[in-house]
Amino acid sequence: MQLFTFWRSLATLRVRIALNLKGIKTENHVVDLLAGHQARPEFKAVNPQMVVPALVLDDGQVLFQSMAILEYLDEVQPQPALLPTDAVGRARVRALAQIAVADGHPLVTPRVRHYLEHDLHISEPARQQWSRHWMGGALAAMEGHIAKDKATGLYCHGDQITLADVCLASQVIGFGFFGGTMEALPTVARIHARCMEHSAFANAHPLKQPDAPKP
Amino acid sequence: MQLFTFWRSLATLRVRIALNLKGIKTENHVVDLLAGHQARPEFKAVNPQMVVPALVLDDGQVLFQSMAILEYLDEVQPQPALLPTDAVGRARVRALAQIAVADGHPLVTPRVRHYLEHDLHISEPARQQWSRHWMGGALAAMEGHIAKDKATGLYCHGDQITLADVCLASQVIGFGFFGGTMEALPTVARIHARCMEHSAFANAHPLKQPDAPKP
Repeated sequence: MQLFTFWRSLATLRVRIALNLKGIKTENHVVDLLAGHQARPEFKAVNPQMVVPALVLDDGQVLFQSMAILEYLDEVQPQPALLPTDAVGRARVRALAQIAVADGHPLVTPRVRHYLEHDLHISEPARQQWSRHWMGGALAAMEGHIAKDKATGLYCHGDQITLADVCLASQVIGFGFFGGTMEALPTVARIHARCMEHSAFANAHPLKQPDAPKP
Repeated sequence: MQLFTFWRSLATLRVRIALNLKGIKTENHVVDLLAGHQARPEFKAVNPQMVVPALVLDDGQVLFQSMAILEYLDEVQPQPALLPTDAVGRARVRALAQIAVADGHPLVTPRVRHYLEHDLHISEPARQQWSRHWMGGALAAMEGHIAKDKATGLYCHGDQITLADVCLASQVIGFGFFGGTMEALPTVARIHARCMEHSAFANAHPLKQPDAPKP
């Protein structure tokens, strides 16, 4: 498989974590989103939506959208399972994942920050505040769900890593990029810390990628 | 089951369509998002995130996030199936669905439009333009994927209704609320028209709900 990736992409981070958890190696191609390389014809031919991640299967079929890719990986390589076996548990894990994927992250993608700057002429501090507001809001929503729910364990759902943890980690890391702090999110912070002890998460971190800026 | 709903909520629209397709009846409770009733303690006790939909099972468990609820309904009531049987097809359907759920819709929710108005002081015409831009952009991304793909049929994926069609319909209807037009989206428009011929879609339409404004 080939993965089209960018170090800072939170959606690609989720896919990298899942690939690591499943022990699947990919050939990686960097698409520099900050330089606008997603608009190059050669990438547009891979994903007409011009966003990463895109996962190209060995037969040439292209998968896109991080949640769809995560579900695919869990179906074709079921161990370790990233969804519980019961329908209600699966719904809970998917819902927690979607808070990150569909409520928080979409508000801070490069195309949205570009529109705020160039179309609405929002200042840099106000854009940072915008990003912290939505990323933090999604994390607060996750905290509200997991803090007192007895289904929460060492991780978001019991004591096994699920898609909810993969998405929680991407959300916390992204929140940090925008200067967010974790005081009001003790359960999220506890689970994130545990996730990051796992090499699958640690090695997927944006700053550990070959295309990341050097410290 | 009990459904917490609001006529204009696009996420609840998706759940209503799926419930209709599956032939599942629910007891409905209206949460007036435009009047701020999602912040009332009695609803916050149901969904601490204060968003609809929320689906309360007969044993009292609460499901949230439209995509998680759609997957749950498809698991517990498998016919008619809303996902294909092959993993790549499932990934394609979920990805098309996520373009609506995670790329388009999150930019135009009431809380985002409220922030644009009250925190960033964006004018009403510029807010409408914002909403059309993101809703139309997601539909253009869907069009880019489905227009030339031989996996597309009468519907987004072959000739059976899937979650992609459910989400496409919600996206087109929402786009219309913000004054969007369909000239550049022929495949999306064709599939949407076919969906709306189906009573499960037609009866779920926002303007057909008891809490909708009277014409």
